[in-house]
Amino acid sequence: MSPPEIDSLDTLRLHIREFAQARAWERYHTPKNLVMALSVEAAELLEPFQWLTPEQSQHLSDEQHEAVRQEIADVLIYLTRLADLLDIDLLDAAADKLAINARKYPVEKAHGNALKYSDLSND
Amino acid sequence: MSPPEIDSLDTLRLHIREFAQARAWERYHTPKNLVMALSVEAAELLEPFQWLTPEQSQHLSDEQHEAVRQEIADVLIYLTRLADLLDIDLLDAAADKLAINARKYPVEKAHGNALKYSDLSND
Amino acid sequence: MSPPEIDSLDTLRLHIREFAQARAWERYHTPKNLVMALSVEAAELLEPFQWLTPEQSQHLSDEQHEAVRQEIADVLIYLTRLADLLDIDLLDAAADKLAINARKYPVEKAHGNALKYSDLSND
Amino acid sequence: MSPPEIDSLDTLRLHIREFAQARAWERYHTPKNLVMALSVEAAELLEPFQWLTPEQSQHLSDEQHEAVRQEIADVLIYLTRLADLLDIDLLDAAADKLAINARKYPVEKAHGNALKYSDLSND
Repeated sequence: MSPPEIDSLDTLRLHIREFAQARAWERYHTPKNLVMALSVEAAELLEPFQWLTPEQSQHLSDEQHEAVRQEIADVLIYLTRLADLLDIDLLDAAADKLAINARKYPVEKAHGNALKYSDLSND
Repeated sequence: MSPPEIDSLDTLRLHIREFAQARAWERYHTPKNLVMALSVEAAELLEPFQWLTPEQSQHLSDEQHEAVRQEIADVLIYLTRLADLLDIDLLDAAADKLAINARKYPVEKAHGNALKYSDLSND
Repeated sequence: MSPPEIDSLDTLRLHIREFAQARAWERYHTPKNLVMALSVEAAELLEPFQWLTPEQSQHLSDEQHEAVRQEIADVLIYLTRLADLLDIDLLDAAADKLAINARKYPVEKAHGNALKYSDLSND
Repeated sequence: MSPPEIDSLDTLRLHIREFAQARAWERYHTPKNLVMALSVEAAELLEPFQWLTPEQSQHLSDEQHEAVRQEIADVLIYLTRLADLLDIDLLDAAADKLAINARKYPVEKAHGNALKYSDLSND
């Protein structure tokens, strides 16, 4: 089976929705369950990096890179499914968050200061 | 500051790249560090759901919904940043993963069977 | 090989220390790496519960129970190793935290109120 | 309020049980909810380390060390509570797991080889 043509987050969202419907998985896809699944996938993405130095993490082997690529895909798939169920537009949410972060970490204060300011998030 | 106009994952990727460059955060953005940040955000998304019943998780208050929306945005932002650094196209990766999942969870076997088959991922 | 006799957290700590020394793993056991490993294990503990209802999670099969028992052990092992490296006494730390929590969640206010008060932690 | 005297995991277990009973939190303490809470705490332990180099993670400031100590305590508290509900003895479980790990990572093979063998766990 060749991969589906997916050229936008919106197409991805609809593909995943169909995928779940076809398997009658909607009953399992409560937001509570999906955030758990998302955390599991985020940890699977953490795993290949746990014993690497930061430098090694910048030079993955082809095999490591492909494994990481699949885990990244899993995170995006669950994130898209969760956002669909909660009626959240991912790009709008990210745009709003970047504006919040820009206010929280003004360029002049954040410059090169990671310990206090390097979060892309504002929590 | 009004939110940036972001109409695609590619635009989001470039915005985040500029955001990090302007703050000289690139040195902190190793893949190892970014997967940690992503896991932290995934857990912050877990937190508002931890004591809710599955049913309650489907009926968030406006305040809960907005908090969850911001955490979802954080996950997407770090995921996009990580994929940028690893030269991974998010939509291509998701399309490939959906094809893998379709083979792993054939419709006829997976129908309504969550315990064995309800993962959208294949790990 | 029969399991080692472990009758206290202190004995466990020394066993794990020897285990790591015998394999020359000390170089990998930085606190940064160990908190990543701990998060990975915590997520592996999350995984068997992700599609269960809260009720089902209270009635695990023998096989599920044993799998969960092993993941719980992994979390304890990494937590003990991390605390050893940071020279933290686990029981003292827990006692201090319970005192903090008791102040934060006074019985009269917290009674049966999970959404605001049910955290055993105070973050 | 001074910290309770806690000289064993068993005493800790009973203290936490009373703590939850006094606040009528038992209804929220399903295994499913508790593994979520444990993952949240594990991520809070991850957070202070995310932008540190491995070397920096070995030299925490007093303030960082105290914050980490409290997060470690939170993880132990939830782990103890979960094990209590599932009728799992933490030290027995850890002893059994160490025996499994010793078979999986024989000293001669694992020596100094982190990428393949450095897991204390066997997943």
